[in-house]
Amino acid sequence: MKTLEILGRSGVSRIVIGSSIGQLEEFCNLERSVIITDQTVRGLHGDLFPQCAVIEIGEGEESKTLKTVEWIYERFLELEVDRSTLVIGIGGGIVCDVTGFTASTYNRGIHFGFVPTTLLAQVDASIGGKNGVNFQRYKNLIGTINQPEFVLCDFDLLKTLPLSELKNGFAEVIKHGLIGDARLFSFLEEYGKKVLDLEPEAIERVVSDSLNVKARIVNMDEMEKGERRKLNFGHTIGHAIEKITGIKHGMAVSIGMVVAARLSQDKSMLSTRETQRIETVLKEFGLPLEIKAGKEAIIDAIKKDKKRTGHEINFVLLNGIGNAEVVPVRIKELEEVMDDLCQYR
Amino acid sequence: MKTLEILGRSGVSRIVIGSSIGQLEEFCNLERSVIITDQTVRGLHGDLFPQCAVIEIGEGEESKTLKTVEWIYERFLELEVDRSTLVIGIGGGIVCDVTGFTASTYNRGIHFGFVPTTLLAQVDASIGGKNGVNFQRYKNLIGTINQPEFVLCDFDLLKTLPLSELKNGFAEVIKHGLIGDARLFSFLEEYGKKVLDLEPEAIERVVSDSLNVKARIVNMDEMEKGERRKLNFGHTIGHAIEKITGIKHGMAVSIGMVVAARLSQDKSMLSTRETQRIETVLKEFGLPLEIKAGKEAIIDAIKKDKKRTGHEINFVLLNGIGNAEVVPVRIKELEEVMDDLCQYR
Repeated sequence: MKTLEILGRSGVSRIVIGSSIGQLEEFCNLERSVIITDQTVRGLHGDLFPQCAVIEIGEGEESKTLKTVEWIYERFLELEVDRSTLVIGIGGGIVCDVTGFTASTYNRGIHFGFVPTTLLAQVDASIGGKNGVNFQRYKNLIGTINQPEFVLCDFDLLKTLPLSELKNGFAEVIKHGLIGDARLFSFLEEYGKKVLDLEPEAIERVVSDSLNVKARIVNMDEMEKGERRKLNFGHTIGHAIEKITGIKHGMAVSIGMVVAARLSQDKSMLSTRETQRIETVLKEFGLPLEIKAGKEAIIDAIKKDKKRTGHEINFVLLNGIGNAEVVPVRIKELEEVMDDLCQYR
Repeated sequence: MKTLEILGRSGVSRIVIGSSIGQLEEFCNLERSVIITDQTVRGLHGDLFPQCAVIEIGEGEESKTLKTVEWIYERFLELEVDRSTLVIGIGGGIVCDVTGFTASTYNRGIHFGFVPTTLLAQVDASIGGKNGVNFQRYKNLIGTINQPEFVLCDFDLLKTLPLSELKNGFAEVIKHGLIGDARLFSFLEEYGKKVLDLEPEAIERVVSDSLNVKARIVNMDEMEKGERRKLNFGHTIGHAIEKITGIKHGMAVSIGMVVAARLSQDKSMLSTRETQRIETVLKEFGLPLEIKAGKEAIIDAIKKDKKRTGHEINFVLLNGIGNAEVVPVRIKELEEVMDDLCQYR
């Protein structure tokens, strides 16, 4: 078991790695607590939950709305939730995002923490303090940045995840290696199979190293004014692909990372050998390298997302494996790289 | 013109005292800005607004809801508001509270500032970073604490206010003197008439001193963990009276301050002479000293508000004029003081 700390504006956030949900009471005061979760998670792990009131929200992006948040406020009033209450989100990214936003805005902010149950939530969504909900067709348009008091990562919870959901998380683990930890990336190259099999030591190592990268970056720049943008590596293209094709976040980010790696290579920031190593690891983890969409639709979506009409877009590129840098890229350069990667022209 | 600063978690908030709305551009970048206001304020001062999009919200507590907030999000999308936009709330407490919450949650927080148009908003509501909306029958249940980037206090705007609205603000000015600035209180005693007549030097002095007290306290304790509670002087009883009788905030707080002063006197923290001085000033500013409600209803409302069933309640009392202290008070003591002040038994 390891502990990391994030020093946010609102206080210290403690990330406990490799503990068990049964030990929750060691890290927080459960006397007056309320759990927010969903039906699937409760069905799989409900017998491990501490004894307290449970609020069950709907599943999927369509539940990540202000309507759900208002519905939780109402439950909070029924349960007489006040500033002495601790709210615990137990679930994947959606449960964590909704829990964080609701707790951050009820009574102008009450105590909250997370037990993330997916790999993606453990290595990414649950830490960093970003929370929120979708509004109309915009993802995460409404939210705040407010750190949870604790995040407890229990690897046993990952055993019930389908492979596709694990891959979703591994894309972010690979990203963390690429932008900030070359040794983590080498470990993934060497021990990919052990990691995919969730061998205890291997999974602890990669989740822990991955969280280290994210915690280090968030500690430097909680409010996303500079350094934190590096966490968007693979995400500019990734979000556009996700929107257009509807594939899972991790899959889309994988393709986004390939595009960013090739752009880095074109700018002589990354060697051909390094680009190959990246593509090999992504493949090993069952992640896609090619885009099943036309480049025009993707570039349009990027321009809209960034509200940019100019000829350049700021991109996170790699200056060698383990080292990210924000670099302006001409749309033309981007189109050239994408010509090689788009299956449909 | 004077400037004060509040150092919040999210950055520096600059309070400009005695400037004019026409000089707004000296304090902020108006290039990409959006105004939130209401019909009355726009009608009175709209010709002074900078040239930009205006969003007009409804008036009164019934407009201070999540529905209004969602409606503003929609306008923001239409106006292509993004992280480079500055949102300016021009109006009273409700406009400031709603603007602050909407801007703090859109895109996980965008730039915002205030031009408060009521005395109450200038000396109280617009500074300190508390924002939010009502939910069901609970005032300000949903909100955050997030400082505006600037607050511009233009005293000319106060000239259109009805006397009852001015009194509403003076109750908070008197409170600020009582809890943190004995000289401000003496000034109010001596120059009450000049202040009530809004004589430029007098009003600048009292608004400025009043904001100084609030800024000092918020700087010490933005998140209301200790020191900031002193700002609740007169408000424990005040909120209960406001809820039960429906009288204006300032009027209710005035009575709350009388109760708190008498409790302080009973505990030998305040002399009889000091209590008299307080009551004289409140009267001079046209504020009420007596309660037009039965004490039981008020005490019930307090217990509910504080979710307390015990025999004691924490009260902000005065240890001499200009010096506040949080002290536990027995319900019985409170009842005795209220027996003298309630017109209906």
